[in-house]
Amino acid sequence: MLEKYIRAARRLEKAELVLKNASFVDVFSGGVKRGDIAVTDGKIVGVGEYDGVQEIDCSSLTVIPGLIDAHVHIESSCLSPEEFARLIVPRGTTAVVADPHEITNVLGTAGCEYISKASESVPLDVMLSLPSCVPATPFETSGAKLDGKAVEKHINDGYIFGLGELMNYVGVINCDADVLKKAEASLAVGKIIDGHAPSLSGCDLNAYLCAGVRTDHECTERQEVEEKLSKGMYIQLRHGSTARNLDNAKYITPENMRRFVVCTDDRHASDLAQKGHIDDALRQMVALGVDAVTAVRCATLNTAECYNLKFRGGIAPFYAADLVAVDNLKDFNAKLVIKDGKIVAEDGKPLFDSSERYLPANVLNTVHVRKLSANDFVVDIDGDSAKAIKIIAGSVVTGAETVKVEKVNGDVKVGGGGLLKIAVVERHKMTGNIGKGLLKGYGFKGGAIGLTIAHDSHNMIIVGDDNQAMADVANSLRKTGGGIAVSDGKTVQTLALDIAGLMSSKSAEDMQSEMRALSEKAYEMGVGKNFEAFMSLAFLSLPVIPELKITDRGLFDVGKFELVSIEN
Amino acid sequence: MLEKYIRAARRLEKAELVLKNASFVDVFSGGVKRGDIAVTDGKIVGVGEYDGVQEIDCSSLTVIPGLIDAHVHIESSCLSPEEFARLIVPRGTTAVVADPHEITNVLGTAGCEYISKASESVPLDVMLSLPSCVPATPFETSGAKLDGKAVEKHINDGYIFGLGELMNYVGVINCDADVLKKAEASLAVGKIIDGHAPSLSGCDLNAYLCAGVRTDHECTERQEVEEKLSKGMYIQLRHGSTARNLDNAKYITPENMRRFVVCTDDRHASDLAQKGHIDDALRQMVALGVDAVTAVRCATLNTAECYNLKFRGGIAPFYAADLVAVDNLKDFNAKLVIKDGKIVAEDGKPLFDSSERYLPANVLNTVHVRKLSANDFVVDIDGDSAKAIKIIAGSVVTGAETVKVEKVNGDVKVGGGGLLKIAVVERHKMTGNIGKGLLKGYGFKGGAIGLTIAHDSHNMIIVGDDNQAMADVANSLRKTGGGIAVSDGKTVQTLALDIAGLMSSKSAEDMQSEMRALSEKAYEMGVGKNFEAFMSLAFLSLPVIPELKITDRGLFDVGKFELVSIEN
Repeated sequence: MLEKYIRAARRLEKAELVLKNASFVDVFSGGVKRGDIAVTDGKIVGVGEYDGVQEIDCSSLTVIPGLIDAHVHIESSCLSPEEFARLIVPRGTTAVVADPHEITNVLGTAGCEYISKASESVPLDVMLSLPSCVPATPFETSGAKLDGKAVEKHINDGYIFGLGELMNYVGVINCDADVLKKAEASLAVGKIIDGHAPSLSGCDLNAYLCAGVRTDHECTERQEVEEKLSKGMYIQLRHGSTARNLDNAKYITPENMRRFVVCTDDRHASDLAQKGHIDDALRQMVALGVDAVTAVRCATLNTAECYNLKFRGGIAPFYAADLVAVDNLKDFNAKLVIKDGKIVAEDGKPLFDSSERYLPANVLNTVHVRKLSANDFVVDIDGDSAKAIKIIAGSVVTGAETVKVEKVNGDVKVGGGGLLKIAVVERHKMTGNIGKGLLKGYGFKGGAIGLTIAHDSHNMIIVGDDNQAMADVANSLRKTGGGIAVSDGKTVQTLALDIAGLMSSKSAEDMQSEMRALSEKAYEMGVGKNFEAFMSLAFLSLPVIPELKITDRGLFDVGKFELVSIEN
Repeated sequence: MLEKYIRAARRLEKAELVLKNASFVDVFSGGVKRGDIAVTDGKIVGVGEYDGVQEIDCSSLTVIPGLIDAHVHIESSCLSPEEFARLIVPRGTTAVVADPHEITNVLGTAGCEYISKASESVPLDVMLSLPSCVPATPFETSGAKLDGKAVEKHINDGYIFGLGELMNYVGVINCDADVLKKAEASLAVGKIIDGHAPSLSGCDLNAYLCAGVRTDHECTERQEVEEKLSKGMYIQLRHGSTARNLDNAKYITPENMRRFVVCTDDRHASDLAQKGHIDDALRQMVALGVDAVTAVRCATLNTAECYNLKFRGGIAPFYAADLVAVDNLKDFNAKLVIKDGKIVAEDGKPLFDSSERYLPANVLNTVHVRKLSANDFVVDIDGDSAKAIKIIAGSVVTGAETVKVEKVNGDVKVGGGGLLKIAVVERHKMTGNIGKGLLKGYGFKGGAIGLTIAHDSHNMIIVGDDNQAMADVANSLRKTGGGIAVSDGKTVQTLALDIAGLMSSKSAEDMQSEMRALSEKAYEMGVGKNFEAFMSLAFLSLPVIPELKITDRGLFDVGKFELVSIEN
């Protein structure tokens, strides 16, 4: 196996592919070097002077190692792994550490397996974490449960790379036995544990780290970055669609540089298509004043070191031939992307086929609800006031308000004063659970909007001012196997997210075009322009973020950390 | 298992040990910080404000992580692993990556097992490499052979950490199938391969690296350091007794700093006792102008990263509580050494007992030769000239000279003109092999010197001008199970190296005192003061270093790379 590399390295045989006269980033010692980069059988065999069977003149380009996304939920793109790859590989990303937290909440480890297998056909390495927090809380019904015992059973499965972000830091520092079991099982087999610990500091941070956690992508300020670095954490600079803290790059110094990596966490298809992926993060970092070579190191060698990816993230003999030739180290436009020694994209266009989709039966038809009727959305309360969730633009935090309500035929009257109904319909196990509440501030009227992306359990969340329309969108999503639906009281327009109710099996272009059409309809029907039309709703069901949320089991007061009645 | 760390980290329970008010080196982000370092059950649980069951005021000390020697042959100390630990642990070394190349040449994997088991009783982590070059060449008889198949069989044994320095770079770049099999077997199970590639550069270096080699400790100049760094190698700064290239530390920059580590390779007991170990390297580095924090990082975090030692090499929660409190970051005098949370040395004195020695039968009595007589050392040649090895002070390279010889009774006459006989007596397998030759320049007369340290096969090497004295030292070493012996033609004085003929089972002090006495005798008998009395002989049998060497099978011309006759 090694002989062919060695013979090519010694020029006894021509290398398969040579990038001639390339400038390239030396991530090991810093700086930009020049030479021919020789590639054979998936590996870099030498840098120097080489002839190749195929030669590409790179004299006007700069070669960098393939970019690595240190932490991403692929599901947030609403695309299949194949189509996700088709968007990001031409941007220069050749590997991602993916935490399939969303699909696993729907399907359990079958969701992990699906992401893993679906990624096999595309030229992207997907290192898959086993999600650590499924379900996110005990106050909701998820499609699956991965307790400590399940993690113990699966953490060493061949396709599992590490333990996904340990969001339940409260459980960790309070020594919740089941949470600790997950960490212990991971450490026992030497798997890396990703972290998520917003604002944790001091003794509590020390305690959290004592579960063997290695990374954090939630830092918001200098002191937090510096404390976490000093305590041995890798700081993930996040360049997501909504949540971003790439600005933390301004705290990089030559001394701490090696401990910063780049991730996207959650990034929509439209951003991937229009702005880019890690390449866009590099552009922003350089624009922020970060040295370009440092930025590249943060997205390559540092990430490889953080995750112990052997012989990755650098341009050197025996390293994986994952290479990106960019126009320059300011714009980072990928002119050529090489994965495992093969040219897989040119000028932003993929050269691989992602049209054959892996679609096992168990990821389809995951919306298990009975047929619903208008009656199911009646909100019958005794008094004349009720709690309402106040949605806040640009934030996943909500407010809690007490509102006066009128009743008509034993049903709260909505539509006036911007009040809407909100319901979370359990859609995994046919429990019949429907949590109901009131929503203020979203701005929509004259129908209903429903979606099966509802963090983190991904039940069906429906808002509207028309009981029948609410039933109609529910029934429509039941038929499409999930997705997003908008009813104007007459017709229902739907974007099918047929893979687990989270991702489309269509092409990136088709999915985006349908998504755009549906968004436009939602805005036409009054959704405030300052809201993301649908994704702003998807977090109203997440009972770990203040203040008032809703699950399939009812309203949840995050401050009290308990389910509460809609009535006062 | 994690609960106790977490509870201590949160101060719900007192930490077992707290280093109060310590300055400490933050290897992650650089710089010196201050705080209490709390330790429980072998791990650091927190840095901040802590109370402990035991508290030590460190307000006048600076705490650094336990030092790691990235590459060492313990055998070169001539001490058992227990006594080796007793010298280095009080100096602040808490872990070594050890390549038991010497003892494995004598005993095969039983030698590795011995080093591993003997190290268990002392507070030093010994990460054991499986030697890759046993025997070093096919032109000598070693005690054992580890071919590709044997490496394949043993590389994943529980106590084996990686593959030892792949010295046979010529074999690698020429695609020797057996050599490549060793590398392939190691890579297949994810083991790290150490390197040794003096002056290799360009395509040949690329080819060597294509065997998956990760480190080098042989760099002699700037260009070599920079090329190897740029090609992804970790540069080991070597602070041995004879071979040193710690000066390469002057090529450290903030950009490449993370890729330098510190090692000793071969270091004698006297240096360990008088000058120190990695602590001495740090002193020298700082004296050379290297920033002290950088020096510490090179001997801690960098090494941990190089060898993927998880949660080691830093002062942070969940990291191994391997800590050294030094007086300051210039002198690095270890006032307190903590290993796995226990205080194991104070003020340079070990607090652990190393007197109970692990001594399995198979490491003793390893000198298998018949009783020799004066006749065995007769050198009978036809002509009147012969080849002589010219020993060169301070170098392992030799010269080759043609000398006129007189004969008496069919035996070359020596003693005049500084000419001595040199013989290598095979001592592993009773083959009866005795390679004989002539030696110039050593300066000894009136007897014989013999030793069973003779790189790399460790046969018995004997020099002298008196056949009977040569036989006497041989027979004496046969009785002691190896060691070093000096005969003045009347009596034989011996230092027993009873462990595999390489290491003493006595205390470091006793071994050194006997060694000193023996050296004095050798110098009295004329050994040039510019030579190390015995170790200068130990390399005359190493047939990979120019120019003329000798093995149990005869004279070896390194240039021609073949055995040659003593006659011209």
